[in-house]
Amino acid sequence: MEYSCTAYELKCNECGKRYGNRPLSGCPDCLAPLEIAYDLDSARGEFTREAIEAGPANIWRYKRLLPIPDGFQPDLPVGFTPLVRAKRLGKRIGASNLYIKNDAVCFPTLSFKDRVVSVALANAQKFGFTTVGCSSTGNLANSVAAQAARLGIKASILVPADLEPAKILNTLVYGARLIRIDGNYDHVNRLCTLIADEYNWGLVNVNLRPYYAEGSKTVGFEIAEQLGWRLPDNVVVPMAGGSLIRKIRKAFKELIYLGLVEDKPVKFFGAQATGCSPIAVAVREGADNFIPQKPNTIARSLAIGNPADGPAAAKMIIADGGWAEDVSDVELVSGIQELAETEGIFTETAGGVTTAVTARLYAQGRIHPDETTVVCITGNGLKTTDALAGRYEVARAIRPRLADFDAYLKELDGVSEPEPELVAAGDVRVL
Amino acid sequence: MEYSCTAYELKCNECGKRYGNRPLSGCPDCLAPLEIAYDLDSARGEFTREAIEAGPANIWRYKRLLPIPDGFQPDLPVGFTPLVRAKRLGKRIGASNLYIKNDAVCFPTLSFKDRVVSVALANAQKFGFTTVGCSSTGNLANSVAAQAARLGIKASILVPADLEPAKILNTLVYGARLIRIDGNYDHVNRLCTLIADEYNWGLVNVNLRPYYAEGSKTVGFEIAEQLGWRLPDNVVVPMAGGSLIRKIRKAFKELIYLGLVEDKPVKFFGAQATGCSPIAVAVREGADNFIPQKPNTIARSLAIGNPADGPAAAKMIIADGGWAEDVSDVELVSGIQELAETEGIFTETAGGVTTAVTARLYAQGRIHPDETTVVCITGNGLKTTDALAGRYEVARAIRPRLADFDAYLKELDGVSEPEPELVAAGDVRVL
Repeated sequence: MEYSCTAYELKCNECGKRYGNRPLSGCPDCLAPLEIAYDLDSARGEFTREAIEAGPANIWRYKRLLPIPDGFQPDLPVGFTPLVRAKRLGKRIGASNLYIKNDAVCFPTLSFKDRVVSVALANAQKFGFTTVGCSSTGNLANSVAAQAARLGIKASILVPADLEPAKILNTLVYGARLIRIDGNYDHVNRLCTLIADEYNWGLVNVNLRPYYAEGSKTVGFEIAEQLGWRLPDNVVVPMAGGSLIRKIRKAFKELIYLGLVEDKPVKFFGAQATGCSPIAVAVREGADNFIPQKPNTIARSLAIGNPADGPAAAKMIIADGGWAEDVSDVELVSGIQELAETEGIFTETAGGVTTAVTARLYAQGRIHPDETTVVCITGNGLKTTDALAGRYEVARAIRPRLADFDAYLKELDGVSEPEPELVAAGDVRVL
Repeated sequence: MEYSCTAYELKCNECGKRYGNRPLSGCPDCLAPLEIAYDLDSARGEFTREAIEAGPANIWRYKRLLPIPDGFQPDLPVGFTPLVRAKRLGKRIGASNLYIKNDAVCFPTLSFKDRVVSVALANAQKFGFTTVGCSSTGNLANSVAAQAARLGIKASILVPADLEPAKILNTLVYGARLIRIDGNYDHVNRLCTLIADEYNWGLVNVNLRPYYAEGSKTVGFEIAEQLGWRLPDNVVVPMAGGSLIRKIRKAFKELIYLGLVEDKPVKFFGAQATGCSPIAVAVREGADNFIPQKPNTIARSLAIGNPADGPAAAKMIIADGGWAEDVSDVELVSGIQELAETEGIFTETAGGVTTAVTARLYAQGRIHPDETTVVCITGNGLKTTDALAGRYEVARAIRPRLADFDAYLKELDGVSEPEPELVAAGDVRVL
């Protein structure tokens, strides 16, 4: 169960030992995580601005620097999501060069996880796995289920029992087997490590993790290309396992190395919910003293208390001169609303965290108003509607007559509001 | 409140009278709907394959044949959604050249309405409206609310009182004013016609309707370009107001006229829910006898009983040799599941209708297995999760131990399933 490839292979972060290509996430010798190492120089004539721009409008335009087996024909148009200028949000928080990288509309399942899953499943097929799976806080579950369905391979997905209903439904609908675990994500993940040893399954974020994680680089590639082959000054990234923020940096470094963008300093800012903020705490209090937490936040997609790449992410943020903050559940809900009201983008709880943290970073003066800053929005608000329960009111219905409408509008605009009523998805009561 | 433009203007479908550019939907003389007429010949040197391909990866690449005022700088990357080959769905229903045009991931609000709204709001701004709005079955409400928020203009949106909770929330979150009407869409729409006369509002599908409707042409442009500048043999389209199916045809005709694609016959197939099928009935029983219906279906985004473009759509379908079918609510739910299980695409109730109708058309032999057929999926399943209530079961949660997992898997694979429990979004009960 391995394949040979001249373009890339597994390499230990610590001891540098190489392992070819096989389903393996940690170095058997020193137990450090494995990463994909490329022969970057061999890509020099091929991974060019021109070649990329001539490619398809999806992540496969960057295929040359992804661990994609020879002969693999990607046919799912994943990624290449919009990077939009955020003038109105910027005005509200004091930022004049603000951008949103919007993976809330990523094909097929509306989160950045679609990127990592498509790379992982290409390898799962190459390795010959007939069942794939993952441990997930929701978005990964959705993506593995959907992409496995399209490929016609079986999926078994493990999640914490208290996952949001929309994320559960959005896994089951694809025909995946969903296994609920009585515990938090860290419990689920530990169980998956044991399952990977016993079952012949391709678990995308366990034994396929080095391949999987490389998919996140495409966020970085896209940001640079969409800024006109230029790196931003700052990137604000939500942190769960700590992988995404590191891979965006890796993408930038590869672009610099190959001369596609000018070398310049980029600061990375991590965003977490206060109820699960081990990486943010490590950034602020010193990365050598990494302390796992027991998650307690409604930002379930960030609720990883013992993140695999947490210590490395904290070190990286500090080394580049960035920072990390965490916000409360109340603040993250306001963050969801603020992004929707200013930019028309409805994000999930994790995106509320990232938006609220961004606002705080500007308020703290850690980001200068004129700097080019990209905020990574990684998931869609329709998956976490419960977070807004009780935040909105619907008024009584009126009759379809102009006179009733006129009177109603006067009432709305006048002192006496029509008697409101709380509304939440799944719970609309009418007077 | 009008502007002059040499590239396009309003023209009456019936009497041919021209009206320049102003907020007006029907001919004051003969009451027929107005459409946008272009000087197509003047576009000949500009609307070329090369020019389009050099444009941005969104609907603005087709700006030359959209009613976009001079000097308008579109900055929202709407559209250019994936067209994916549907091999597994095709295998299940006996189709060997099947494609899904997937607007379920359209930016910003996950439906094809984002296309029409962006064109309408460009004109609303040009006309100087400071409040915009619409009558809506949900997706349009979401899109108007989101795009108005980003532009910083007020939105007042009228909907039937019984709209799905996710669509209500996904309107309110952007800060729009939502007005619930005690009646069905046709009641709401009639009220909006009166409002447009009394208030100085830009109602996208009322007084801005001719501009708005043109946005749907981009679905047709994209299908042709994504097929490699080739027209399909068949297109299956959901029908509510009857506009989309006509505009896709208009786009094809414009491409043929300007020589971007080869002229060939294309058949159009309309899809409706049985509980609201006036256009499908008119196609089958004769378009001259168009009978409005009182909607009664869970496919609320198709629940327009008296569709503005219904008679014209029926005539067009018949003239081109196409057909129309309607499916029950039970069948549409199966359609949602079938598309998800085979292609990993989770669509809303309207998409379930379109999928189920497509299957029936192949079963009836109305579409030959080898013909190139594009199925238009226009909205996202996360907006209509209630439709799947009771369709899925979650089993009890298990402890995070390998022994428990092993036993559980044996149980799942064996005769005795673990005791299941119904699950619906917003309603997950744990044993």
